Amino acid sequence: MPEPIQNQGHTKKKRVAVVGATGIAGQQFLVALQNHPWFEITVLSASSRSAGKSYEEALRSSNGQVHWWQYEPIPPAFKNMLVQNSETLDLSQIDIVFTAIDTDAAKHLEPIYAAQKPVISTASAFRMEADVPLLMPGVNSNHAALIKTQQKNRTWKGFIVPIPNCTTYGLAATLAPLHQAFGVKSVLMTSMQATSGAGRNGGVLALDVIDNLVPYIPKEEEKVEKETLKILGILKNDAIADAVIGVSCTCTRVPVTDGHTETVFVGTHKPITVEQALTAFREYQSDCAGLPSAPKNFFQIHDDPFRPQPRTDRDSDGGMTTHIGRVRLEKVLGGIKYVLLSHNTKAGAAKGAIFVAEYLVSKGIIKD
Amino acid sequence: MPEPIQNQGHTKKKRVAVVGATGIAGQQFLVALQNHPWFEITVLSASSRSAGKSYEEALRSSNGQVHWWQYEPIPPAFKNMLVQNSETLDLSQIDIVFTAIDTDAAKHLEPIYAAQKPVISTASAFRMEADVPLLMPGVNSNHAALIKTQQKNRTWKGFIVPIPNCTTYGLAATLAPLHQAFGVKSVLMTSMQATSGAGRNGGVLALDVIDNLVPYIPKEEEKVEKETLKILGILKNDAIADAVIGVSCTCTRVPVTDGHTETVFVGTHKPITVEQALTAFREYQSDCAGLPSAPKNFFQIHDDPFRPQPRTDRDSDGGMTTHIGRVRLEKVLGGIKYVLLSHNTKAGAAKGAIFVAEYLVSKGIIKD
Amino acid sequence: MPEPIQNQGHTKKKRVAVVGATGIAGQQFLVALQNHPWFEITVLSASSRSAGKSYEEALRSSNGQVHWWQYEPIPPAFKNMLVQNSETLDLSQIDIVFTAIDTDAAKHLEPIYAAQKPVISTASAFRMEADVPLLMPGVNSNHAALIKTQQKNRTWKGFIVPIPNCTTYGLAATLAPLHQAFGVKSVLMTSMQATSGAGRNGGVLALDVIDNLVPYIPKEEEKVEKETLKILGILKNDAIADAVIGVSCTCTRVPVTDGHTETVFVGTHKPITVEQALTAFREYQSDCAGLPSAPKNFFQIHDDPFRPQPRTDRDSDGGMTTHIGRVRLEKVLGGIKYVLLSHNTKAGAAKGAIFVAEYLVSKGIIKD
Amino acid sequence: MPEPIQNQGHTKKKRVAVVGATGIAGQQFLVALQNHPWFEITVLSASSRSAGKSYEEALRSSNGQVHWWQYEPIPPAFKNMLVQNSETLDLSQIDIVFTAIDTDAAKHLEPIYAAQKPVISTASAFRMEADVPLLMPGVNSNHAALIKTQQKNRTWKGFIVPIPNCTTYGLAATLAPLHQAFGVKSVLMTSMQATSGAGRNGGVLALDVIDNLVPYIPKEEEKVEKETLKILGILKNDAIADAVIGVSCTCTRVPVTDGHTETVFVGTHKPITVEQALTAFREYQSDCAGLPSAPKNFFQIHDDPFRPQPRTDRDSDGGMTTHIGRVRLEKVLGGIKYVLLSHNTKAGAAKGAIFVAEYLVSKGIIKD
Repeated sequence: MPEPIQNQGHTKKKRVAVVGATGIAGQQFLVALQNHPWFEITVLSASSRSAGKSYEEALRSSNGQVHWWQYEPIPPAFKNMLVQNSETLDLSQIDIVFTAIDTDAAKHLEPIYAAQKPVISTASAFRMEADVPLLMPGVNSNHAALIKTQQKNRTWKGFIVPIPNCTTYGLAATLAPLHQAFGVKSVLMTSMQATSGAGRNGGVLALDVIDNLVPYIPKEEEKVEKETLKILGILKNDAIADAVIGVSCTCTRVPVTDGHTETVFVGTHKPITVEQALTAFREYQSDCAGLPSAPKNFFQIHDDPFRPQPRTDRDSDGGMTTHIGRVRLEKVLGGIKYVLLSHNTKAGAAKGAIFVAEYLVSKGIIKD
Repeated sequence: MPEPIQNQGHTKKKRVAVVGATGIAGQQFLVALQNHPWFEITVLSASSRSAGKSYEEALRSSNGQVHWWQYEPIPPAFKNMLVQNSETLDLSQIDIVFTAIDTDAAKHLEPIYAAQKPVISTASAFRMEADVPLLMPGVNSNHAALIKTQQKNRTWKGFIVPIPNCTTYGLAATLAPLHQAFGVKSVLMTSMQATSGAGRNGGVLALDVIDNLVPYIPKEEEKVEKETLKILGILKNDAIADAVIGVSCTCTRVPVTDGHTETVFVGTHKPITVEQALTAFREYQSDCAGLPSAPKNFFQIHDDPFRPQPRTDRDSDGGMTTHIGRVRLEKVLGGIKYVLLSHNTKAGAAKGAIFVAEYLVSKGIIKD
Repeated sequence: MPEPIQNQGHTKKKRVAVVGATGIAGQQFLVALQNHPWFEITVLSASSRSAGKSYEEALRSSNGQVHWWQYEPIPPAFKNMLVQNSETLDLSQIDIVFTAIDTDAAKHLEPIYAAQKPVISTASAFRMEADVPLLMPGVNSNHAALIKTQQKNRTWKGFIVPIPNCTTYGLAATLAPLHQAFGVKSVLMTSMQATSGAGRNGGVLALDVIDNLVPYIPKEEEKVEKETLKILGILKNDAIADAVIGVSCTCTRVPVTDGHTETVFVGTHKPITVEQALTAFREYQSDCAGLPSAPKNFFQIHDDPFRPQPRTDRDSDGGMTTHIGRVRLEKVLGGIKYVLLSHNTKAGAAKGAIFVAEYLVSKGIIKD
Repeated sequence: MPEPIQNQGHTKKKRVAVVGATGIAGQQFLVALQNHPWFEITVLSASSRSAGKSYEEALRSSNGQVHWWQYEPIPPAFKNMLVQNSETLDLSQIDIVFTAIDTDAAKHLEPIYAAQKPVISTASAFRMEADVPLLMPGVNSNHAALIKTQQKNRTWKGFIVPIPNCTTYGLAATLAPLHQAFGVKSVLMTSMQATSGAGRNGGVLALDVIDNLVPYIPKEEEKVEKETLKILGILKNDAIADAVIGVSCTCTRVPVTDGHTETVFVGTHKPITVEQALTAFREYQSDCAGLPSAPKNFFQIHDDPFRPQPRTDRDSDGGMTTHIGRVRLEKVLGGIKYVLLSHNTKAGAAKGAIFVAEYLVSKGIIKD
């Protein structure tokens, strides 16, 4: 059991703004940051439609329903907090900005914030920019060094670090130890994604997934294929050289609330056995253990072939572990195949972004 | 539109026995054979527990519920028909036996029946025997010639022809035109299977699939991998030479009542484009058109990338067509990838077995 | 079996406009009117956003998905029909207008249409107006006489006849024979409503009903309570005197696509036995038998206490019958209790409106 | 906040046996008793089929799946504990017996256990016996006095105290304050029950509740109607006089894993307003506060009319609170109507039984 990592010797909590606080991911930030040992929310912001209202009123839909979808109640401290306008945010009293907004808004707003402050983003807007690391602590932590390049390039005091797509998360995490030890050559993945991933506006309708599934999620496959290569890439000379792996995905939506399941077929350069693969997963050294949001076990390996299952497994270890089951030899590609499960709205969204911020604080990249 | 194929000039309907008539597949036989132009059920049989009861009483569970799970009501003609004991069946007045029983029962009973009469089976017991064709009309119809070998080997007057596993069905059907035109080299498939496939006893519990999926179906992947090679194999010298294709599957269970969805990644020997693949599917010549249970279109191709979906598409064309959507280039394997949907309890079970019987009648292999 | 009622001796089909053709109810009109023996759609209209597009293009959402949610494909005849603007509709070549629009739009548009033509409406806007019948053929057919009063009052050449709320439909239908024979005194009803009832915009989100139910549907209970009294009321002196019955409801939303289930507790003025209730249901004389959309059986009575169930029963008899099960004595209220099921988007919406139009044509109230 | 009640000054934990440990309710006992401050499991027992196996092996089904359905993993302490035979249990080293077995087994086994030790039962076998209290701490705690009568009648050293049916639980709890303050005259209730209530063997099949609900649960309504009257009855002269209330129920099964929802219509003897009802719920004094399993709030009242909902609310307060929402005037009966939610496998089963045991220990009725 690792020693808890300290908040860099500071006793004062860092002040954070949650931008896009009324959406599903925004709500998750509130839950995850409630009682956080290092961070405290001091600003909530949203679009002009919500600005000026109390947080609870901003959640109220036209039929009177308060659209709060988390298992935990609205943290009382935020219920009456005034929602600010994301367009005109004053960041002078803020140490970190978490954004949970859509791509178009992110393209416009995040550079404005980043000119002044560190921005950890759940949006895809900047993920594929050359000077932007797509950071997964414990997987490609060293990519954080690219932040300096970014700041120099763009003459920003702050920076933007996006987290990967929620479907990329589990795939990249589980490929990391395999790539390290055996060299991954090819990956064919089919995802069975939860409905919470589609968010609050434009969310998945009940009619689409009762006794049904939808075999397509627009733009998802392309994101997963590209992001995986960048995350597993190598940083040298202030640039990331993408990993050279053939990645092909089919992404589907299934009648599950939370938790993305993926079936993965992996071909490796070096020969691999099931035992070797299990050992690689079990002995994988993540350099993020001890951070407040780090899972106790980076991977949870299941012997029971009927596991992992979304409902029973997604929340274990705070929703921050990646589950791996059914590890078998993959004879067609020459490698292994397995099933993974990760929590798309915890590890794959708000909590994952907070985890990144913790890492950057622990390394002194985010300072006071 | 092909001419309807006639019942070999016979005006009298063939008399059929449904063995295992009380299970889910057995019930489907009753629905599918109600008003069939060529066949009429004259015997229903089940285990000794049900024998001697009326059909409706045999369906009653211990809590009083009549366990009939079809959308159509119990065909009135069968409600009060006496259920016979499958162990002591008199087949003298029967032309065809349809079996819907489990593997162990099939191993024991089907040879007894086959000694006298044609047996079309939904069980897996004899699927992989060397002298048993795994028949899919329109895909490997010529394998029917193996029946003679079987009869000679075993000195049977009748024979056993099993239909493939419900998950194999859609995969083998869609691979057939690709294999014919481009040579299939490798197949990686993930299935998202409906709960009806698990049958009535030992069925999937609600607790297992509400807000959940199960990433494992015992023995399913092995069946699909082997059966596909046999179906796509070549009959010569009274034996089937399996197709030489690398096939690897992951089979999962999802919260859908009927309709198996499969994501398929295919590598081909010859280069292939999306247009060529679509043409191969569209122009595929099935030699079974015009049979009473044949679908109007062997394949239904979807342009809308959100389709096929189980609830809205499974029942089209009597549940006997195979749906294909999302045809795209597969760069990792060198080939194409797509999503298929087929009806596991229609095309993939009872109705599929009836389709086989119709084919054998039309070819004169089943005679009076 | 009643004689089919004729289209009043006319061989030419009546030309109908479907207003709000792109919504869920609008789509159902297209399916239900395809191949209708009396009516043919000649105009489709929608809001200005859709006007000028082909019907299929008007259904396309921002992510490219064609939002067509019916089991049947888009009737080919309408795919490329130009959608007109509901605000500027030319009704000169139209015989009947079917509206499937929201309340606010209905308040504004329906009087404009009704000034010229018969309007059969699925909206609630005019349901409770004194000179507007809330017509259910077979239940209160004689209320149609109020149409003349309405035309006189409002100096309209046409008129508005709304159909009841989809939840009222089954309740009022099943109370009718009881009220006739025993006098209904009190009704306590709990509904378990399907998600399709909430429509396409503002539809029920998957997150709201996976492993969940929602115990509230805004404004629904009030509608059901009021509409039931009007439907069961008596027309005299050109006005409807509401039935004097205590009605109290709780309306909930459950994870079902189609089919509203209601548990009903009824107190009666005269003593009643279960046998008498069953007889009243069985012998109920509907005066609408033989109309093209009339169910073969106005009620379907279930002996099996596990029925009716939405998935297996909703579609029987074209989705136009009302299912009744579990008829038992109700000792607290002094009466009977039962469970009903009716198809909310067939009997309770588009098909129900067409049924009303058929009735009015058969009675000569809608003429050429 | 009440003072925690102590384990009657004893520092040693009481040793408990869980009989029927492999079923769903039995599994819940293991989870709920793990780390319990007063009780520790020292014996697990099941039928002869499981006896002699390790607990984990006893859970393994014929297809190899370990049938453990709880969110928490199998408590490691029990994984390898040897399962004993319930028929031949040695209770000499046991202080309390918890039973989670079916009615027939309970009829036979519980008296044998009760001859020696206190038995807290989730089975219905003895609930309606005259000298058996149907105990709900905080609702009818004083009925515990009947235990002495039972011991005298039956010359037992121990006793049997059953908990009510899981559907009765929420109904009786919410009626208690209303009955106390206003006198309840009539109750009409419709339940929408979770699938976990049906247990592991004979559990609800997925095919029964996907896109569906079942409007009947055998024997459930009778249980709820009778048990409610006994729980709300008055103990005098060593006997319980049932409450005089008209109770009528319709019980249905819906696609929800855990959490029973009930819509309740209540008529009262004294006039009642919504405000008075809310006050009665809010100010209700439970005499069980401070027990280890007692909820912080006996009731949780919801202002948001869309709540309570099973998925988001069932687990709050350890699954031991009863949720009340949508409190409105009930004009037909003269009273109020509301919606309740309680956790059928926590408050309504294992945890509820443990709660009873805690109460009896705190009152000195269960001693060392």
